[in-house]
Amino acid sequence: MTAADVSAERAERLDAADDLAGFRDRFVPITDPGVVAYLDGNSLGRPLRATAERLQEVVGDEWGARLIRSWEERWLALPEQIGDELGRVALGAAPGQTIVADSTSVCLYKVLRAAAALRPGRDEIVTDTANFPTDRFLVESVAAELGRAVRWIEADPVDGVRAEDVAAVTGPRTAAVVLSHVDYRSAVIADLTAITRVVHERGGLAVWDLCHSAGSIPVELDAGGADFAVGCTYKFLNAGPGAPAFLYVSSRHHEAFGQPITGWMGAADTFGMAAHYVPAPGIRRALSGTPPVLGMVGVQEGVALLAEAGISRVRAKAVALGQWVLDLADAWLVPLGFTVASPRDDARRGGHVTLRHPDAERLARVFIEHGVLIDFRRPDGIRVGLSPLTTGFAEVRRAMERIRELAG
Amino acid sequence: MTAADVSAERAERLDAADDLAGFRDRFVPITDPGVVAYLDGNSLGRPLRATAERLQEVVGDEWGARLIRSWEERWLALPEQIGDELGRVALGAAPGQTIVADSTSVCLYKVLRAAAALRPGRDEIVTDTANFPTDRFLVESVAAELGRAVRWIEADPVDGVRAEDVAAVTGPRTAAVVLSHVDYRSAVIADLTAITRVVHERGGLAVWDLCHSAGSIPVELDAGGADFAVGCTYKFLNAGPGAPAFLYVSSRHHEAFGQPITGWMGAADTFGMAAHYVPAPGIRRALSGTPPVLGMVGVQEGVALLAEAGISRVRAKAVALGQWVLDLADAWLVPLGFTVASPRDDARRGGHVTLRHPDAERLARVFIEHGVLIDFRRPDGIRVGLSPLTTGFAEVRRAMERIRELAG
Repeated sequence: MTAADVSAERAERLDAADDLAGFRDRFVPITDPGVVAYLDGNSLGRPLRATAERLQEVVGDEWGARLIRSWEERWLALPEQIGDELGRVALGAAPGQTIVADSTSVCLYKVLRAAAALRPGRDEIVTDTANFPTDRFLVESVAAELGRAVRWIEADPVDGVRAEDVAAVTGPRTAAVVLSHVDYRSAVIADLTAITRVVHERGGLAVWDLCHSAGSIPVELDAGGADFAVGCTYKFLNAGPGAPAFLYVSSRHHEAFGQPITGWMGAADTFGMAAHYVPAPGIRRALSGTPPVLGMVGVQEGVALLAEAGISRVRAKAVALGQWVLDLADAWLVPLGFTVASPRDDARRGGHVTLRHPDAERLARVFIEHGVLIDFRRPDGIRVGLSPLTTGFAEVRRAMERIRELAG
Repeated sequence: MTAADVSAERAERLDAADDLAGFRDRFVPITDPGVVAYLDGNSLGRPLRATAERLQEVVGDEWGARLIRSWEERWLALPEQIGDELGRVALGAAPGQTIVADSTSVCLYKVLRAAAALRPGRDEIVTDTANFPTDRFLVESVAAELGRAVRWIEADPVDGVRAEDVAAVTGPRTAAVVLSHVDYRSAVIADLTAITRVVHERGGLAVWDLCHSAGSIPVELDAGGADFAVGCTYKFLNAGPGAPAFLYVSSRHHEAFGQPITGWMGAADTFGMAAHYVPAPGIRRALSGTPPVLGMVGVQEGVALLAEAGISRVRAKAVALGQWVLDLADAWLVPLGFTVASPRDDARRGGHVTLRHPDAERLARVFIEHGVLIDFRRPDGIRVGLSPLTTGFAEVRRAMERIRELAG
């Protein structure tokens, strides 16, 4: 194997050939001169200029001038409208199955409760020990309240959960299997279609957490047969800090779908003030409280920009950026004691690369202090987030160069 | 009884004597020339100029320039920080008991589950048949999932739920009593302290919905002995459409308080990625997902303005506005077939006045089309919302005059 070219000229060539490079101008510029590179867009994507502008319009015109009338005129429809567009652009979901609402935690709670109710005779919920804390915590909480057991998958940290791992622990007791599509540490992509098929063969339901895939890799919820999915919008969809999450329920389950947080927005006639709760038809019954309009503006703009860029171009650039990080890491950081903790196979690696180092927690603080904004993830991971709509190849090289100096 | 003076001159005098009149300039002006009067601030309060400005700063500086670092620097603390300030300014709650998060529906679900868990041997949850739909729906949903029964209070629609009504249905089976502090139709104020005392005498827990009181009338959660409370911020607190709700848990219950939506933000060590969920100490364990930062900006600004105005001045003006509506209604609308469906006793009437009319649904549409923005509430209520920080006496008179013309 010959050493990869990690020269500044190669970075220049890669940036010059990048057909998404122009999208960077659509974002609010980083005015802090101390920022060398922003490689944490998979924790918090950068703001779009359009979001800042739309917020002014929404506050001034929709809220300030149309006042309460905007609920009927615009806002009440947003959870489904934005959900449909997100489903089309990023999730492979036909209309009427996705809503934007609540936080990922609340959405996952609803979905877990709904899934368990759809498989009343089955007493196990399956997840993996490396899944994101919220997912594990909620699986344990819902299992405890419903008198079910949690069945744990122990997967290889880099290889992730494979269909055979799922096959090994599922069976007639399996109610639902809850997995992350892209692992928050290694970025390994789980085979949604193959795993969902195994889960269905055992009679269970497949619940997918798309937090680290939505807006970064094409997701095929309908084609893959997924039953439920949730995810956040503040990472690769650039919707803003704490922007509302999304929730997908396959139309197969709409009639039987129920969830316990029965607020007025999920009722068949929100303003009917009925004596008892009657769920709205379709995905709307997954709603609970009043939709968070300001937060949804960011989702709407993020999804619109992704529609313009196209998820396949985004994915292609994420792969190229990932390769570039690996080339730079191999040349400069592996000799300093870093190891690559993400798949080297492009097809199995999502939108970030994790590098392990025994002193990662301290180093991460040093990098951040010096303007290289990466993320630290316990126990020893430096997570390099790649946001194809904003991240440039020279930016990545600048970051890795600084990391080499600081860690050397 | 002599007829009240409803002249334009009296409106002028009332506006001239109004020491909160200057606060109107702190709000985004209503640029729609078709709006005669905005009397629906108890559905959606108007936006503050400061909120529009702060949103630009938050997007540009905190999100755009400080990027992910803002979580540690500012945002993670917001749910408790804003909650404490809201507690101090409007709720009579000492610090450490109130957070801003989720929607009212989600907050109420958490609180109902927590309350039921604290009274495991008791199998009834009490509410009233006229309570807001979300409250009734959630009481029924939580009762059903936990195998409890709902015990209904049938109160007089204008007099509301009194302590004796609560005494009549509570006893050794009562786990919790869930009531609205201010009724969304009649605006009648429930006696929080007296009712809470009755609930406690029976060994139950008092859960208060403050949606129509927070920011409008002084609430005394600590002094009144309330156990739990929830409420929204988009009415009298002007926080914006779908802005996050608040949730109060008396410190008496913090140690035993648990809720089932165990997301990472409610865990003791959010970024510890622990193997199992350990709840954070204190009120923070009521959190679930990532805090909605943009929505919280509106709450922060709304609470700050209320702190400046003072809840007692707001309350005094709400009473005066209510009297003014009653004077105008008696003079102009009662002769046209309207009846007053709110308490005439100032001490028992919250921040709105409801007028009934057999043809209210059609009339409400006509009024709104003609720029008099009131609210219709089934079956036959026209709700006139009074927001002391924005509503003027001449504005109210203009609206009532138009209503008289249109309904005459």
